[in-house]
Amino acid sequence: MATSAKPSELATPYHRTELRVPLFEVDLGQAVYHGNYFHLLELGREEFLRWLGYPYRSFMDQQLHLTIVELSCAYRKALRYDERIEIHSAVMWWRSRSLAFEQRIYRATGGGDSELCTSATLTMVCVNFNGRPAVLPADFVALLRQVTGKDSEG
Amino acid sequence: MATSAKPSELATPYHRTELRVPLFEVDLGQAVYHGNYFHLLELGREEFLRWLGYPYRSFMDQQLHLTIVELSCAYRKALRYDERIEIHSAVMWWRSRSLAFEQRIYRATGGGDSELCTSATLTMVCVNFNGRPAVLPADFVALLRQVTGKDSEG
Amino acid sequence: MATSAKPSELATPYHRTELRVPLFEVDLGQAVYHGNYFHLLELGREEFLRWLGYPYRSFMDQQLHLTIVELSCAYRKALRYDERIEIHSAVMWWRSRSLAFEQRIYRATGGGDSELCTSATLTMVCVNFNGRPAVLPADFVALLRQVTGKDSEG
Amino acid sequence: MATSAKPSELATPYHRTELRVPLFEVDLGQAVYHGNYFHLLELGREEFLRWLGYPYRSFMDQQLHLTIVELSCAYRKALRYDERIEIHSAVMWWRSRSLAFEQRIYRATGGGDSELCTSATLTMVCVNFNGRPAVLPADFVALLRQVTGKDSEG
Repeated sequence: MATSAKPSELATPYHRTELRVPLFEVDLGQAVYHGNYFHLLELGREEFLRWLGYPYRSFMDQQLHLTIVELSCAYRKALRYDERIEIHSAVMWWRSRSLAFEQRIYRATGGGDSELCTSATLTMVCVNFNGRPAVLPADFVALLRQVTGKDSEG
Repeated sequence: MATSAKPSELATPYHRTELRVPLFEVDLGQAVYHGNYFHLLELGREEFLRWLGYPYRSFMDQQLHLTIVELSCAYRKALRYDERIEIHSAVMWWRSRSLAFEQRIYRATGGGDSELCTSATLTMVCVNFNGRPAVLPADFVALLRQVTGKDSEG
Repeated sequence: MATSAKPSELATPYHRTELRVPLFEVDLGQAVYHGNYFHLLELGREEFLRWLGYPYRSFMDQQLHLTIVELSCAYRKALRYDERIEIHSAVMWWRSRSLAFEQRIYRATGGGDSELCTSATLTMVCVNFNGRPAVLPADFVALLRQVTGKDSEG
Repeated sequence: MATSAKPSELATPYHRTELRVPLFEVDLGQAVYHGNYFHLLELGREEFLRWLGYPYRSFMDQQLHLTIVELSCAYRKALRYDERIEIHSAVMWWRSRSLAFEQRIYRATGGGDSELCTSATLTMVCVNFNGRPAVLPADFVALLRQVTGKDSEG
């Protein structure tokens, strides 16, 4: 796992997660199944939150979930078994009860180079365990402010 | 399985697939996992193609796949275990090597009523088994023309 | 969906679920991924319970789950995309807090014939939503007795 | 990732893979879905093969797969989201065209202690891309011999 807060193609500080494409994510077309990219992206967001100092577990400990209400994904180049990838994750904006992630998956192409394979944006709402929208925890928002240098939703 | 070609909220003739939300699609938030809606939508598209008279198997028999290059999905209301749902699937447009589906998932709310829960659009490219773009089979396009009454990409 | 209570290769009355192998269950080896057979078997057990008159939903409405503690599976012949299959499901035995299913998947080979592809046994324990073992509901056991003609664990 | 060839509860030298339980593997019962433990076990076997010096990719480069023909799994204690686990993987025996893995998943319980949660054995056959049984590659068997100190199937 590598971490980074340097400027990047993503508009805000982002976190970088490295892994290899697992066998079980690949479908009969020999590439990752389109619905399984969301596993890889989720692993990236989990690492982002841990790096931020507010792991997803902390949401759950308060009986909260971040539930996805909208997403879009562009599959520019298919990911294949065992490829080394980097998942870049950044928070694009947040409001009192919602936030959006922008994520990209790069494939290592050798010699330290990489190419952009996948771009996604995911909007999520904070909900309690009964499914009712809830305000994002104040200490989480404070960390977002600190890391992004932004005062609010950007 | 029910079929239909009557006018609908979707702009073009569409196919309707009925099923119950399976247990294994549900995650710890008690709703279908966001990446697993693509299983349900895929089942709808498979039924659409079978209804059209050109099952996905026919693509594979010609060493072709329809690979997804872009998608967006709005999760308006979460789907829960065992709910009766209807998946509506329509082809929005097609070009020589690509096409786009528009799909919606409705939940039965009793008394014959239903509510819109999920909306998605998926763009796919026809590729051969080596991953190279390929022209959509002519007989498939002929069926699309016949069913939609459209001459081309709409 | 077809139902049956006639004698069979399985030792007890069993339920039969028919479906086609979905695209999303198949992996890069062109057969159903070994962990995904448990999706198909689960669909079979859900149908069994519905047929018995005690759908899984009834367990959940009482804050109960049937959690799997042991399973074994023999993959005699691989299942491939779009094949028509029949899942046979039977309860082998039950005790106060546990029960075991025996299940088989057959593939239609044409002309009404079929071949055995998969055999599995799954032992499960009834637990409440806190994960503590719980006695199987009495009305569920009464239905099992009635259907199997057995007084107890057989 | 940690590696080890020291004696262990498993009868032969084994490899140890460390990870955290991902969110997407957990089902509505708040534990890993029974069919998804096979994802975790597969990650363990992939690491074992890489550590052995014969990554799964090498099989695929020769148009070979190791296809699972039989498995059994005991779920002693359920794995939950975000728990730190260790997957121990060992080859129990091999023959000319087949081999068996024994695997265990331990959960870290703090203070360097851990508890056994899952035990599994998986038998697989080497097949070519047409699904026909094939002899295990000689250099793979040579590595197994070297690592296990066994001459044959044990």
